[in-house]
Amino acid sequence: MKAAVLGAGSWGTTVAKILADAGSDVVVWARRDSVAANISQRHVNPDYIGQARLPARVSATTDAAAAISGAELVFLAVPSQTLRGNLAGWTPHLASGATMVSLMKGIELGTSKRMSEVIIETAGVAVDRVAVVSGPNLAGEILAEQPTATVVACADMDRATEVQNALTTPYFRPYTNDDVVGCELGGAVKNVIALAYGVATAMGLGDNLKATLITRGLAETARLGQALGADPLTFAGLAGLGDLVGTCSSPLSRNRTFGEHLGRGETLEEAQKATRQTAEGVKSCLAIRDLAHAHGVEVPITEQVERVCHEGLDPRQALRTLMSRDTKAE
Amino acid sequence: MKAAVLGAGSWGTTVAKILADAGSDVVVWARRDSVAANISQRHVNPDYIGQARLPARVSATTDAAAAISGAELVFLAVPSQTLRGNLAGWTPHLASGATMVSLMKGIELGTSKRMSEVIIETAGVAVDRVAVVSGPNLAGEILAEQPTATVVACADMDRATEVQNALTTPYFRPYTNDDVVGCELGGAVKNVIALAYGVATAMGLGDNLKATLITRGLAETARLGQALGADPLTFAGLAGLGDLVGTCSSPLSRNRTFGEHLGRGETLEEAQKATRQTAEGVKSCLAIRDLAHAHGVEVPITEQVERVCHEGLDPRQALRTLMSRDTKAE
Repeated sequence: MKAAVLGAGSWGTTVAKILADAGSDVVVWARRDSVAANISQRHVNPDYIGQARLPARVSATTDAAAAISGAELVFLAVPSQTLRGNLAGWTPHLASGATMVSLMKGIELGTSKRMSEVIIETAGVAVDRVAVVSGPNLAGEILAEQPTATVVACADMDRATEVQNALTTPYFRPYTNDDVVGCELGGAVKNVIALAYGVATAMGLGDNLKATLITRGLAETARLGQALGADPLTFAGLAGLGDLVGTCSSPLSRNRTFGEHLGRGETLEEAQKATRQTAEGVKSCLAIRDLAHAHGVEVPITEQVERVCHEGLDPRQALRTLMSRDTKAE
Repeated sequence: MKAAVLGAGSWGTTVAKILADAGSDVVVWARRDSVAANISQRHVNPDYIGQARLPARVSATTDAAAAISGAELVFLAVPSQTLRGNLAGWTPHLASGATMVSLMKGIELGTSKRMSEVIIETAGVAVDRVAVVSGPNLAGEILAEQPTATVVACADMDRATEVQNALTTPYFRPYTNDDVVGCELGGAVKNVIALAYGVATAMGLGDNLKATLITRGLAETARLGQALGADPLTFAGLAGLGDLVGTCSSPLSRNRTFGEHLGRGETLEEAQKATRQTAEGVKSCLAIRDLAHAHGVEVPITEQVERVCHEGLDPRQALRTLMSRDTKAE
């Protein structure tokens, strides 16, 4: 089987390794020549996966048409806000019937759309051709082949099973689910909650409060998910609770680390400079807040994160506001 | 208001401090003279709460009848397996109409009964007179007055509110809930899952797998809870998810620490010697397994923990068994 992975960042490259280890021939599309050359010729991608080596069945190209052509599974792993623009150019090359698999965990700014919605709109494919992969999946641990589980969600369970099989290795176990909305939302909102968790960590707050933040964070994710038609049980699973706990627990998580910079009193610009990137939750919090407001759902943690990131609110004040909310029954 | 706290261990003493800070006069019952004298005369309890100091409104006695007499709120904080025996002697001294509040997180061996059930049976009180307190409540953080939330559950919401008010301080925020079964079960099973988490930690397993363990652990708690009539939403709240995440996250947690000893290859006896105590989950796993079997509920993590603790199973083998379970859909 041929699989394409569009995007050669840390998560795209990691999924390319899993696919190859599970038996597929994998072609990665990279934006930069140097990244494609490193992958194809030296089986490495040091800018994104450090010292890890890739299987020989992974090659790379900067020609997206060549990567996509003939691929039965097309994995999308570009920055969320660039998906629409990229996909417009790629669509003509898609094999008919190919399954599109989103590896992205953002929400589109302006439209507040999930990545699967952007795929359906832009590529003009039916909803049952789009799958998402989401779960407690820190890339570094997977590259080291540490045991990891994940969720593959698709409205068409046969396709979900096909993607599951293509991703099953001794160290990586996908479970299937038909709730695309819930899995995508769990992955997107967890980045925002992880920012808040990082702020709390940097402020020296205790495990009692941080466990409360995770609990409340998952509750607001589930509230929003239910309003959007997701299955509430999804949020109790690997793509909800699992992903949120994994991200918040790991000092390696980008969103948590970014939040720690904010919690030490740095501005957004200083945190971006220190981490050399913008964490996904910084952008997504705007779109998630808009989505929640449009559906009349309260998302107090997301709102405070948005105010800290984009309105200059002092994170200490934001946490005090969250903690003093007057809610008597759980 | 007069409150009694029966049991002067770490959690009982901590709750005595909260009650006093919230405005009650508190009498603690201690088994040992030296502990009672330390609390009454020096406002300390170094064996259980380290260097922390207690408010002047907390006194202590070894005379349970004196502690209980006239108390409107009676908090029970003795070792779970001693509750039935202790309570038999205390019942004649209870003020009529007093609310009994369980701070205990065990399940009785032999009967597989929850602590509120033992209270109802032994003290002969109605179900709506028994409340439980449960949540992400590491005692050390509360003694340091770090912000903490918890759940007070009682079938009678007026009593729940009374207990809530008696425990509300600037650093401690209780939320009410009417699901006693769910709150108690969340607190009891989380000790067993924390043992497994400790094993995984000592074995060097990654955050991906540990997040999966927390997710699966909460799922088996919720399955058992539903079979016993609990509200499934309770497990998504502070007394379910919150308590589990708080306990697993903290290196100070007794059950996690005990699991780490087992995960390093120590026997149960060696782990008991090293930690100078038996973690609650070591006993509860037997009763929880029996309870699950009686209700036809699968509790794979609890079963493996029981086999490691009481049947000499190698913890590495137990984790391998858990990870190789064949479950295709989530």
